[in-house]
Amino acid sequence: MAEITAQLVKTLREKTNVGMMECKAALAEANGDLEAAETILRKKGIAKAEKKADRQAKEGIVASYIHLGGRVGVLIEVNCETDFVAKNENFQAFVKDITLHIAAANPKYVGREEVPESLIAKEKEIAAEQVKGKPANIVDKIVEGKLEKIYADLCLMEQAYIKDDSKTITDLVKSKIAEIGENIVIRRFTRYAVGEEV
Amino acid sequence: MAEITAQLVKTLREKTNVGMMECKAALAEANGDLEAAETILRKKGIAKAEKKADRQAKEGIVASYIHLGGRVGVLIEVNCETDFVAKNENFQAFVKDITLHIAAANPKYVGREEVPESLIAKEKEIAAEQVKGKPANIVDKIVEGKLEKIYADLCLMEQAYIKDDSKTITDLVKSKIAEIGENIVIRRFTRYAVGEEV
Repeated sequence: MAEITAQLVKTLREKTNVGMMECKAALAEANGDLEAAETILRKKGIAKAEKKADRQAKEGIVASYIHLGGRVGVLIEVNCETDFVAKNENFQAFVKDITLHIAAANPKYVGREEVPESLIAKEKEIAAEQVKGKPANIVDKIVEGKLEKIYADLCLMEQAYIKDDSKTITDLVKSKIAEIGENIVIRRFTRYAVGEEV
Repeated sequence: MAEITAQLVKTLREKTNVGMMECKAALAEANGDLEAAETILRKKGIAKAEKKADRQAKEGIVASYIHLGGRVGVLIEVNCETDFVAKNENFQAFVKDITLHIAAANPKYVGREEVPESLIAKEKEIAAEQVKGKPANIVDKIVEGKLEKIYADLCLMEQAYIKDDSKTITDLVKSKIAEIGENIVIRRFTRYAVGEEV
């Protein structure tokens, strides 16, 4: 039988708002499977179905930018540490700059960790095919270089900033962190263009 | 036959947003009964809306709404058939109303066809568990009822409109289609709240 750790019980309590003993029993019944335990509690009608959103102690703002009279639009969440900074004009102007950049540069992901494995595998295969016949260590280097290029194309944090292409968005965020004195995280964004394929 | 006065036609036009000749004809058909004439037009209007709903809607706008000083934001794409309607103030005001609704009502999907099978299966299981021991036909009905409730909670098109809960968003879209005379499709939306779990 799986061990029911205090951490597991705590996580389930935070997710469900249910008492410790009931959480422990549900976890024992589910053999330590968190999701199954949550389902057990919900079946019993104990757990409240509502999601525990807004729990994370993250501040920041959601901002938007509509371009070309409604042909393109961007929604973004940028986090900081305090409500004070979230309301700061300098911070908000920075967020607006990022939305303008996204509208123009059309990134698909925030960072390279979001790029799907399947896309990377496919690109690697294509790149390897293009340089086949060359020595293995050279092939590796070329494939690596092509992947870096793809990350720089698709990932917001690695793109060259449209208003100053000597900097990446990562550089921009870092300098803003230094300037404001709080951690700043571009958490997520969405960009829509009218009629584009999804 | 009852006389169809200009005042009667004007009243019907104001109530239905339908052209003068059609209002006159409907009033004649209803023998001057305003309410019956409105029903005739609504029947025709809805028939019209359903026909229009088959037409391709590739134009439209991307719009956004930022709520509570940046705590919540919505991005939406709503399609229509022509650029002319996309630029129409009435259409744009309608889109704005939908973004306000999304900010307040927090739907997760546009329509029930987007709800993942896994979520439906899980909810069915939970509902069945809660009513077990009852006769099978009653269980089926209760489970079905609970699923309908979930769709009405999660799906934008099935939610009751926050400004008038006698209508669903589907009703709202249909009446806007009848009014504007073009197919209108809420294609997609994104709603962010600062710090929420993803």
